[in-house]
Parts: sequence; C-alpha cells; structure tokens
Amino acid sequence: MAKPAKVDDSHIRHFIGVEGLTKAQLMAIIEKANGYLTDNDGRPNSIKNSNELEGYTVMNLFFENSTRTRTTFEVAEKRLGANVLNLDIARSSTSKGESLRDTLWNLEAMTADIFVVRHSASGTAHFMATEVTPNIAIINGGDGWHAHPTQAMLDMLTIYREAKKPFEELSVAIIGDIKHSRVARSDISALQTLGVKDIRVIAPKTLLPKGIERYGVQVFNDIDKGVVDCDVLIGLRIQNERIGSPLLPSTSEYFKMYGITPERLALAKPNALVMHPGPMNRGVEIASSVADGEQSVILKQVNNGIAVRMAVLALAMEGQRKMKGI
Amino acid sequence: MAKPAKVDDSHIRHFIGVEGLTKAQLMAIIEKANGYLTDNDGRPNSIKNSNELEGYTVMNLFFENSTRTRTTFEVAEKRLGANVLNLDIARSSTSKGESLRDTLWNLEAMTADIFVVRHSASGTAHFMATEVTPNIAIINGGDGWHAHPTQAMLDMLTIYREAKKPFEELSVAIIGDIKHSRVARSDISALQTLGVKDIRVIAPKTLLPKGIERYGVQVFNDIDKGVVDCDVLIGLRIQNERIGSPLLPSTSEYFKMYGITPERLALAKPNALVMHPGPMNRGVEIASSVADGEQSVILKQVNNGIAVRMAVLALAMEGQRKMKGI
Amino acid sequence: MAKPAKVDDSHIRHFIGVEGLTKAQLMAIIEKANGYLTDNDGRPNSIKNSNELEGYTVMNLFFENSTRTRTTFEVAEKRLGANVLNLDIARSSTSKGESLRDTLWNLEAMTADIFVVRHSASGTAHFMATEVTPNIAIINGGDGWHAHPTQAMLDMLTIYREAKKPFEELSVAIIGDIKHSRVARSDISALQTLGVKDIRVIAPKTLLPKGIERYGVQVFNDIDKGVVDCDVLIGLRIQNERIGSPLLPSTSEYFKMYGITPERLALAKPNALVMHPGPMNRGVEIASSVADGEQSVILKQVNNGIAVRMAVLALAMEGQRKMKGI
Repeated sequence: MAKPAKVDDSHIRHFIGVEGLTKAQLMAIIEKANGYLTDNDGRPNSIKNSNELEGYTVMNLFFENSTRTRTTFEVAEKRLGANVLNLDIARSSTSKGESLRDTLWNLEAMTADIFVVRHSASGTAHFMATEVTPNIAIINGGDGWHAHPTQAMLDMLTIYREAKKPFEELSVAIIGDIKHSRVARSDISALQTLGVKDIRVIAPKTLLPKGIERYGVQVFNDIDKGVVDCDVLIGLRIQNERIGSPLLPSTSEYFKMYGITPERLALAKPNALVMHPGPMNRGVEIASSVADGEQSVILKQVNNGIAVRMAVLALAMEGQRKMKGI
Repeated sequence: MAKPAKVDDSHIRHFIGVEGLTKAQLMAIIEKANGYLTDNDGRPNSIKNSNELEGYTVMNLFFENSTRTRTTFEVAEKRLGANVLNLDIARSSTSKGESLRDTLWNLEAMTADIFVVRHSASGTAHFMATEVTPNIAIINGGDGWHAHPTQAMLDMLTIYREAKKPFEELSVAIIGDIKHSRVARSDISALQTLGVKDIRVIAPKTLLPKGIERYGVQVFNDIDKGVVDCDVLIGLRIQNERIGSPLLPSTSEYFKMYGITPERLALAKPNALVMHPGPMNRGVEIASSVADGEQSVILKQVNNGIAVRMAVLALAMEGQRKMKGI
Repeated sequence: MAKPAKVDDSHIRHFIGVEGLTKAQLMAIIEKANGYLTDNDGRPNSIKNSNELEGYTVMNLFFENSTRTRTTFEVAEKRLGANVLNLDIARSSTSKGESLRDTLWNLEAMTADIFVVRHSASGTAHFMATEVTPNIAIINGGDGWHAHPTQAMLDMLTIYREAKKPFEELSVAIIGDIKHSRVARSDISALQTLGVKDIRVIAPKTLLPKGIERYGVQVFNDIDKGVVDCDVLIGLRIQNERIGSPLLPSTSEYFKMYGITPERLALAKPNALVMHPGPMNRGVEIASSVADGEQSVILKQVNNGIAVRMAVLALAMEGQRKMKGI
C-alpha cells in the first residue's frame, strides 16, 4: 500500500512507511542516525548538529494533535538547520472551505521542501506523496492505525545500538494492545526486513488483530511463556479510552495478566532490553521499577528518536535532490 | 491616507499601502522580488535565500487570524535569516488591560526591528507607523477593507513575469466582489501607478462600491462584454458569509452570471492570464478546469507572494537603516 | 530554599532565584548583560547578537500563560542563536495522563540543553533543577509568589546603568502590593546582596506581608513620607482581581493614596528614577505623565530585560559546560 517511490535501493525519496523498504534502505537510515549520536562529550543525550537542511523549509502539518511527535520532529529539523513552520492545518484549511488538495498545493507553492504529516486517516501521507505533491518530500509522522514509521526506526536504532547481537540472532517480544497499535505493525515489518527470525506477540485474544499469524510471528496469550529467553521486550501503551471496555476490564487486572514486572523480566535473557514507545502508564503496562531499571532503554529510545528523525529528513531531502539532478 | 514616509523616490521605510508610492518604488519592489526567484535548479517554486535580515527580529502581530498570509510572511522572514516571533497579540494585550499603545511600546523595547501587522480595522498599520512606533519598520499584512498591499504587489509581480507585454499595453479585468475586497482596491491603485490604461471591473451592481468610476476604471455588469480582448483576468473570492444575502442569492446563480468559465476565457486574448488571490471557491468564482488550466497562474501568485514579501521586508529594513544613517 | 548549585562564586549552573547568589554572581550577570547593550548604532533598543547558544536547544516550558515574559525569553534565546521550542506543556502532559516527572525526563531525552520554566507553584524550578533534571540548565521565568529572578536582575541592571551612584549609596523605595508580588521579594533580596542599605517598602497594611521588617527594610504606610529623598521609585502592579476586594476598595482611592504622581515624585531626589515591572495600570499605580516623563526608565527596563535574559542563559549554559568539563 504505502510503497514509497525509490531512487535506488539505498535511497529514499519520501518516508511513508517501513513496508516496502529494503534492508539496505533501513540500514542506511540506522547508520545515518547513528552518526549523529555522540557519546563522548560529557553530556547525556548528545546529538551532533548538521547543516544538511540549511536553507530548506520544513512544514509540520499536524492534522491530529501529538505534542510528543511534533516536538521530536521540530528538534530534529532545527538541529539540521532547516526553516521550520508549524501549521495548525486542520483549523486553517477547513475554516475557509478550501479542499485539502488546494491547501496542499498552496503550501507547496509557498516553497516548502518537506512536509511532515500527522493524520488520523490511514494512507494520508501516501496519498499526498503520490497524488498531490510528489515533488515535496513527505515524512509520515503517524497515520491512523496504519503506520508510525519513525517510531519503528527509532526502535530499530535502539536495538542496533543496545543489543549485543546482530538482528538475525535476536528474539523480540511485543507485548500488549497489538490490535490498535500503529507501532506494532511498523515494528514487525522493520524487524522482519532486518532479519529478525524470532518475533513474538503477546496479548489477550481481544487485543490481537485477526490473522496476525500470517505475518510470520509467534502468538502467545500467556506472557510468562512468551518472554522466555527473549533479548528484547517491547511494551505497548494501553489507550486510556480502551480501559473499562469489554476488551479490557481494568488496569489492575491488565497489569496482573500482562504487566512487565521484575519477575517476568527475569524469565527473559540476562540483560534483555526493555522498551516502550511512551507515554507510559506506570503500573499498567509496566512496573515502575522495570521502567526505571538498568535494563530499560526507554529514554534512550526518545533520544534515538531525534537522531532517526534527523536521518530520515536528511535522506529524503537528498533523495529528492538526486531524483531531480540537483 | 496611508502615505508612508519616504526616504527618496526609490526607497521605502514602511510598507503600509501601494497608494502614495511612486512607480519607481513599486518597480524597486518588483525587481527586488524577481531577483529572489530562480528558475533553473530543477525544483518548482524555487526561491534564493538571503541573509539580509540576519540578526534582525521580526514580530508578526496578527490581531486577526489569517493562517495563509501569516505563513507566507513567516516563510519569507525565515528565508531572509530573521529571528521570527509570532505573537497572539489580541489575546495578550487585552487579557491584562494594557492599551494597544503600551503593548506596542513594550514590543518595540523588546528590540523588535519589524512589525508585520494584520488587523481588522482600516488604518491600524498607518497609525502604528506614524503615531506609535515610527522607528520600527511596519509592514501591512492587511487591514480591514482598506488595503492588502503585499497581495497587490504579488499580483503585479505575476503580471510583470507572466504577461508578455509592458504594463502600459495591458488590459486587466477584475471580476467579482469589488465592494468588499481589500485586494481590488490595492490592485487598481498599483495597476494605475504602473501605467496600465485599460482597467475594467466586472460585477453586479450590488457588489460595486459607489463612485467606482471616479477611479478611472471601466465598469461592466456583463462579464461576457467585460472580458473581451483582456490580457489578464483577476477573479475575486466571494466571502461565504455574503452568500444567501440579498446581495448574492446563491452560488450557482453567481457562477452562471460571473463565473470564469472556459467559454468566457475564450473571449479574452489568446493566452490571457487567469489570476485569483485564493482561497478559491471552485465552481463559484471560477470553473475548476480554468483554475487548473494552462492559462492559470494562480499557484505562481502564491509562489511570487513569498518573493514579494521578502522584497518588501528587505527594502523596508534597508530604508529604516538608511534613514538613521547606519 | 532555592539555593542553586554553584560552580564557584562567580559562576551559575541554573538560575532559580537571586536568594543565595553572591554579589560576585549578581555582578557577573549585570556586567555580562551590560556588554550586550550598545548605545551607538543609531537605533534605540540596540542589542548585540551573539552565537553563545548556537547549536543548543532551549525549551520554554510555560505551565502558566505569560506572553510578556515568554516573548522576552524567546527574543533573548534567538539573539543568542539557540534552537527555540515553545511547549504548551500543561496541555500535552496532562492530556495523556503522564506524570510531570516522566514528561520532563522525556523532554530531557529529546536533547534539550536549557529549560525556561514558568509555573504557578512556588519551588517548581528548584524542584526540577535539584530532583528531576539536574543536567539541564534551568532558568526560572517566575514561580508562584516565590520569585521572578530575571525581573529582579533587569531592575538591578537598570539601576546600575541609570542611577549615577554606586548601589551602596542609593535609597530605593518599592511602592504598592508588596504582599502578592514576586517582583518585590526578588528585588529586595538582590538590592541587599548588591549593598543597598536604604530599602523602603511603601504600602497600606493590607498589602504588606507579615514580618516584612525582618528583611531589613523600612516600612512606610504614608507614601509622602516614604519617597522623600529617594533615588529610585519602583511601582508595583495592582492585580485587577484584587480591586474591589476588602484589601483594596477602588482604583481611584488607591491612586489617591499610593499613586506615583508628579507631586510625589518631586519629593524624591532630583532625577530620581521611576520604574515599574509592567504591564502598567495608568492612573492607578502611576500617573500617565510620570510613566511617560523624563525620569521614567520603564521602557528601558523592558529593553534591559532582553539583555539580562541573554546573560542568564549564556552564563547558565557556560556553567553547565564547565561543571561537566566540556
């Protein structure tokens, strides 16, 4: 579905989804991002700045509110030297009755180089990249239940940096609301492309999408079996609005059944990594002691998210320029 | 009325309105803007960046919401290297009971160099430039029904670049709600200063201001007569709130009577330009096939709007500096 | 209480409050700020730009709305070359049920270097600096009734530049709602550290905090006695919400009893300075003729506020780097 146009196998022109990208493309993003991370200047969370987007104009088109994702993109864009505009696009386009297409054409004509798009409808970023403004590099900042590809890539970068083994030898467990998670979908796809053979999803039946087995993952309803000998545990966020629904009776019951506790972590490999896309519900998906414990790389994920977004922005702009021969 | 202080005939100190500016001043803006537009690097909508406002602070004071105009100014300011602040000025000044004058004096003291002002009351930008903060370069981003001078200048730049004749030889028709349009007023003034002799306004009597003939324009109530042999057609936006009023019974009737259709466009000169300030109501002021057709320069207007705003900002700052001998 | 960690006596690591800072630290801020002010390039309100924060990311965390303070910080940050992000932090952190601590940890991981914090609860900035994110330089933009230290420092800079005597020889009167003012508290502390011996507070009993005499200030209920032979008069803003309360019957009565009028100003030293933190209620705390008169330095305070905020930001970042040996 979201198959981005390719320049060649190691370039990208847009960044719509991880599905359809090659291992070479994913590794190009990971290695580019890794190059921005510096560990040796005495500050935690260090990122090397760059001037790769100097003189370029990035417009953040957030049709759906997400302070967290928008802030990480904004930091990344500014660290690359871009001119950044945040557009409350929903409000402006609808207020005067203009169509989405006309709004986007106008923004393109205002000399935008990159759109970062967040929308509640699946496929919006793809539609923009292929139908509306193909000359603008489109970065998907999350669309509906479909994909959240920069989140997937920051997860991949974190595993790449923190796990002490190649992707091919890892066991990765994704735990929680697989059904409603844009993260789970993108993570599974990226892990497979990168060669991970043992991918497990752990969830109650009510929170599993139908036919999940076809994706080549192992399904567990019992977390105590699912996490055994894992190298990486990825806890997913339970949306507040689902709690109390027939799918999910109460938070305390969920924690009892599926929470990542010290006891369950002990069943995984020694030094297994604990990950979570945030924001966390402490005491629901994860015990606080695990979230803040030595095996947690949750805040490193956030930090890596800046580097990954810088990489995706820089590579997409480079791909656009290459394609146009400039 | 809005007579900006002059440095000399080819400089500006503020940019309040096109009325009162000389042909030399308008041409200085057009030529400066034209210099920012580059057609040869393979990307559409290319604009050369500049460092003319590096180290200067521009405050966008939008008392009235206009995402479209604000975004174009913000892009222009950032492409000139300025420090840009967007102030929700209405909310802040009223909330603590401070007068407009005190608010502006405070913002001046915060080391602003340029104010871009959008206000619903006519004359606000002029009042600020002459009475309140004359040491700050004031750019009018639209005030009431009075003026929208950067829109007028982007229209002039578009005609300058796209029409294949000098201004003196052109026939220009402005079609639609002349009465309530800040664009029409500014356009007529600029066209006359630039030497256009044949200016036509085409509208129902209810949408024409009284005494419009005194401005030296030809008035037509019948569009099929008005557009004959025109070089440029400028369609104006019908405000949604006017539709259904006694002035304007329905959109379909308006389209039948005054819409720019392929048939009507055929009455104009071959290759006549079609312009519209946006946002368009497709099927009301203009047929979609005309809006997206080969003779339409509507998106070029948007693009030229960035260049014109850059030119006005840079020239006003230069004028301020010259005046102070720095 | 708000004792910031020190590098040595002339450095700062955070800027939480003026209490606990040495005279050397206050003078370092004043002199640094003074260096940004240039008087000789023909423009009023001139500030030299700097690149001291180039490549650093400053996040403005305003839990409480204050357009005025936020704008001055934003100008200062951009004049130092920083990457600036304004976060509507209240809305984002609460909407998904994340704790303040987790929100701050996440923002830290997004590679922030400096947080500028405005909060209605006293001690928030201190709590963040000591408990939550000690590796980030924290600047207090005002917290509850406790402190507004950058306002105090811009007052000190203004006195330093405009009074023609050393601090030790000055008489300073603070007039108005001492009880509810974060400015009064910080000003008194800074004045004492800088060596001012004659500090007077002038207010009705209802607007004086209990035990104010212990701070080493002279208390006056009669302004006509209090301002005699003063070098500096600092009027405080009366909050609109207090007017009509038992503490403060009406604005006209307040003006009659405590307003800074030309007659009262005449009782002070010739050329005594008139100051006010703004926004002013003209005709309540101060007569318009005094506010706009020759002895008023109220707009210079605003201007100096940019320089002081630049100084505090630059020094705190320098202190953080020194501490980490980078």
